[in-house]
Amino acid sequence: MSYCVADYLLDRLTEAGIRHLFGVPGDYNLQFLDNVIENPTLAWVGCANELNAAYAADGYARCHGAAALLTTFGVGELSAINGIAGSFAEYVPVIHIVGAPCIGAQRRGELMHHTLGDGDFGHFARMAQEVTVVQASLTAENACYEIDRVLIQVLSQRLPGYLLLPSDVSQAPATRPTKSLLSPPVSTDPTLLTEFRACAQARLAESRSVALLADFLAMRFGQQKTLQQWMDDTPMPHATLLMGKGLFDEGQQGFVGTYSAAASDASVIQAIEKAELVICVGVKFTDTLTAGFTQHFSLQQTIDIQPNATRIGERWFSGIVMEEAVSVLHQLCKRQVSGWPVPKQKPPALPEATNGELDQHAFWQLMQKFLQAGDIILADQGTAAFGAATLTLPAGVTFITQPLWGSIGFTLPAAFGAQTACPNRRVVLLVGDGSAQLTIQEIGSMLRDEQRPIIFLLNNDGYTVERAIHGAEQRYNDIAPWNWTQIPKALNIHNQAQCWRVTEQVQLEEVMQKVAKAERLTLVEVVLPKQDIPELLQAVTASLAKRNAAKD
Amino acid sequence: MSYCVADYLLDRLTEAGIRHLFGVPGDYNLQFLDNVIENPTLAWVGCANELNAAYAADGYARCHGAAALLTTFGVGELSAINGIAGSFAEYVPVIHIVGAPCIGAQRRGELMHHTLGDGDFGHFARMAQEVTVVQASLTAENACYEIDRVLIQVLSQRLPGYLLLPSDVSQAPATRPTKSLLSPPVSTDPTLLTEFRACAQARLAESRSVALLADFLAMRFGQQKTLQQWMDDTPMPHATLLMGKGLFDEGQQGFVGTYSAAASDASVIQAIEKAELVICVGVKFTDTLTAGFTQHFSLQQTIDIQPNATRIGERWFSGIVMEEAVSVLHQLCKRQVSGWPVPKQKPPALPEATNGELDQHAFWQLMQKFLQAGDIILADQGTAAFGAATLTLPAGVTFITQPLWGSIGFTLPAAFGAQTACPNRRVVLLVGDGSAQLTIQEIGSMLRDEQRPIIFLLNNDGYTVERAIHGAEQRYNDIAPWNWTQIPKALNIHNQAQCWRVTEQVQLEEVMQKVAKAERLTLVEVVLPKQDIPELLQAVTASLAKRNAAKD
Repeated sequence: MSYCVADYLLDRLTEAGIRHLFGVPGDYNLQFLDNVIENPTLAWVGCANELNAAYAADGYARCHGAAALLTTFGVGELSAINGIAGSFAEYVPVIHIVGAPCIGAQRRGELMHHTLGDGDFGHFARMAQEVTVVQASLTAENACYEIDRVLIQVLSQRLPGYLLLPSDVSQAPATRPTKSLLSPPVSTDPTLLTEFRACAQARLAESRSVALLADFLAMRFGQQKTLQQWMDDTPMPHATLLMGKGLFDEGQQGFVGTYSAAASDASVIQAIEKAELVICVGVKFTDTLTAGFTQHFSLQQTIDIQPNATRIGERWFSGIVMEEAVSVLHQLCKRQVSGWPVPKQKPPALPEATNGELDQHAFWQLMQKFLQAGDIILADQGTAAFGAATLTLPAGVTFITQPLWGSIGFTLPAAFGAQTACPNRRVVLLVGDGSAQLTIQEIGSMLRDEQRPIIFLLNNDGYTVERAIHGAEQRYNDIAPWNWTQIPKALNIHNQAQCWRVTEQVQLEEVMQKVAKAERLTLVEVVLPKQDIPELLQAVTASLAKRNAAKD
Repeated sequence: MSYCVADYLLDRLTEAGIRHLFGVPGDYNLQFLDNVIENPTLAWVGCANELNAAYAADGYARCHGAAALLTTFGVGELSAINGIAGSFAEYVPVIHIVGAPCIGAQRRGELMHHTLGDGDFGHFARMAQEVTVVQASLTAENACYEIDRVLIQVLSQRLPGYLLLPSDVSQAPATRPTKSLLSPPVSTDPTLLTEFRACAQARLAESRSVALLADFLAMRFGQQKTLQQWMDDTPMPHATLLMGKGLFDEGQQGFVGTYSAAASDASVIQAIEKAELVICVGVKFTDTLTAGFTQHFSLQQTIDIQPNATRIGERWFSGIVMEEAVSVLHQLCKRQVSGWPVPKQKPPALPEATNGELDQHAFWQLMQKFLQAGDIILADQGTAAFGAATLTLPAGVTFITQPLWGSIGFTLPAAFGAQTACPNRRVVLLVGDGSAQLTIQEIGSMLRDEQRPIIFLLNNDGYTVERAIHGAEQRYNDIAPWNWTQIPKALNIHNQAQCWRVTEQVQLEEVMQKVAKAERLTLVEVVLPKQDIPELLQAVTASLAKRNAAKD
């Protein structure tokens, strides 16, 4: 087979560091799939459905840098689109490739399967515009140029992109790329940089105490190592919100815990909100992260570093990008550091388990002991994520939640994607029963690929986070009662999983010891009291309930 | 609780004949859900995820007339949107209600969960515009008026509609509706009607043979009874395409089988294409229905009755709606009938099973004997649908496929919806292994609701219809190997299902006898040869493969 557009696309994807392609086949993408199978560098990872494939690609990208997803026109892409929207909301670079009918059929407006039967082939690309940063409909003429344009945008903005690939276009001849995909960054205007540095220096000089609050955008834009180095060089009180948890080594001097605005531990509020200067790096103050926008910072008090601009007090420096701003402030702090108090505060200890029962308190205490350095931990929206917020992470842990988009069930296929990206790391998935029902089939993919995640299925008999917000006893918060420990063996005929159901603390302790080595896929059904929720979640849901009932 | 917008909406839904609301709760729709639980006429049906809920609503609407779906902003509605798109493509009236953040939060552009974090609350309504006939964003001021406007459009056009319902708006006071939702149809312009009748009469008079081809739009626009009466009154050769199968009593004199253009049985081509006049009622010639557009009709040869206009020869009569056109032609035929040959042709017999093995031939022969009058039969896209095309249906059977949108896995939740609509009818689901993996969790909902569908799981080890199109041996057409007979007991702790796995004809015969009475949910895993496909599917996939590889 001679070199064609499909090969060009795959070469560009592998140049971007991508080694796996997630998706579901459909007749409009089968030709392209042949090239995928032939490609020696990129592996096809079939998923049970397209939404799960999109979630898996997202989980992969969060661990690996970027990801690619392949679906088919209409039925595939629209099944996936909720996953792409979540990647867009949370800045996860996923390249969505959609196999489409051949160009001729599109031009002739034919009544093809997987269309709306109206001869219009533009509907779904228009929908994709709402949830991707860049889109292209490829032709034999524009394919290579457009592939480059889309990939460059995706990788520099850290947002999903959309490529519509007609079946015939994928086989059109092409020339191997020679020029590198990414060009070196444009250097900052020196005058602007000087002004910025002077302003920042003045602000630091007048501050008797400084704290740092960093979050997910700092991770997305590659500042994790620099920030950790900065906190090593000039210890100061620092924290993340839930969405950025895992950014910092939580044993590091100065790390004070998870900042959740009014729902934070009092010590965290003190350390962060009471500092004279708070440097925010890649933070978005969204509702569930801040228990309903209860953060208290004044403009003057903060330096706000975002991907493409930075604010000092009331002044925005457009063009001072995150990497530049972090570098400047890091250097200034190193020169400035004397005079600031040495931070001694540690993250708050977990709430004590109050009795011998297996409840939320007991569970999180045991989970704290279970975690190991280097783990990948995923916690689904609900009791899992908000309980996990109170954990102190060991070193080198990747922590994955989706608190802004908040699509329940996301973490199960995301765990599949994460394990695919990092086959040698231990993956721990914390997911509620309500959530797991949405995306359960991807356990079959995990078993097919011989993955060994450890899944803690929190069975509190229903949509607990909804119960906490509204309708605690209403039957709409009930779910069908599944036989959780029977699921893995139903989803693979070779049955290599191990499963337990625990209702007592001692049972959970015993099982945790047995499964810690992750020798095979593990599912532990943890039976928890129906309306018991972590304290942080209580505060958050109280604020959500109030806001949803508001009349204004 | 005093009467509010939520109650008004529910009253209008029940006025439209809807008795169930499918969906998944989310905090933005919980207030509305309280009203649903209180409502004495409408029942809440929770589903395992939103795409399955949309499919279930579609299956319900196909049996019951119309349906309603409730999801939450962003994460819920986008998960469902592929289902809504399929309802749009195939003219299924589903009302999609989306619970949204309160109006104030929207106006203030707040960074809420389940949004893209950009303060823009219009993204998803814009996406919905592409796949619904009508949309409204409700406020306290416009809610009742807009609910009426949307429902009227949905019910008259037989297409899905979208209602965005902020959590506070759902609780705003309202007045009970007094005026009926639907007004009587506007009568046709008498001059137009006279012209049309004259033209039709002339056309009929000059035709020495007449055939009728009716399909799905005739069902959607309520012409099933009239067409059946017409075929009783004036017997003539008649057929449907696959998408309209079940429209006619297939034992009726004159019914000749399924018309699939060049892939039809020769007797069907003869009866339909060779008639001097072919009256088409609600037909769309799409690719898989016509083995790649191989139908042969001239304009002069056909009368083409569509929902809002009718064509006789080259002339379109805009404003002659389907009901009117059918009525006119029915009456004219009754007066005309002498001179046309009496139709004696029967539908072709199923291909003989060639050996004792359990292969496609054997399976369809046994399925033919298994069917009963009044059944609801669902056949998923792939070997199931195209094999089922060759069955001759007993009387009063509802036959559900999705050949235009063609989203695999659709029929499993659609069966759940169909059984919900018709609890006393026997539901038979024919679904391939690849398809079933996408939507499997709704078996848990079937068991929770004590439904008793009979599920034939066609296990030919992978995406067989894709194998037939391209890449027969490629690993992208493999799927994770599930333990199908273990699935129902994993998805319900009370385990009321019965399961078999059959590999021999005699086993299948025996099992079919046992399960015919549908006393409990049944899953029969039927192991079929990997690359054996029904003949009709061979013809269709050959044409698809050719078209996807085409260079033009």
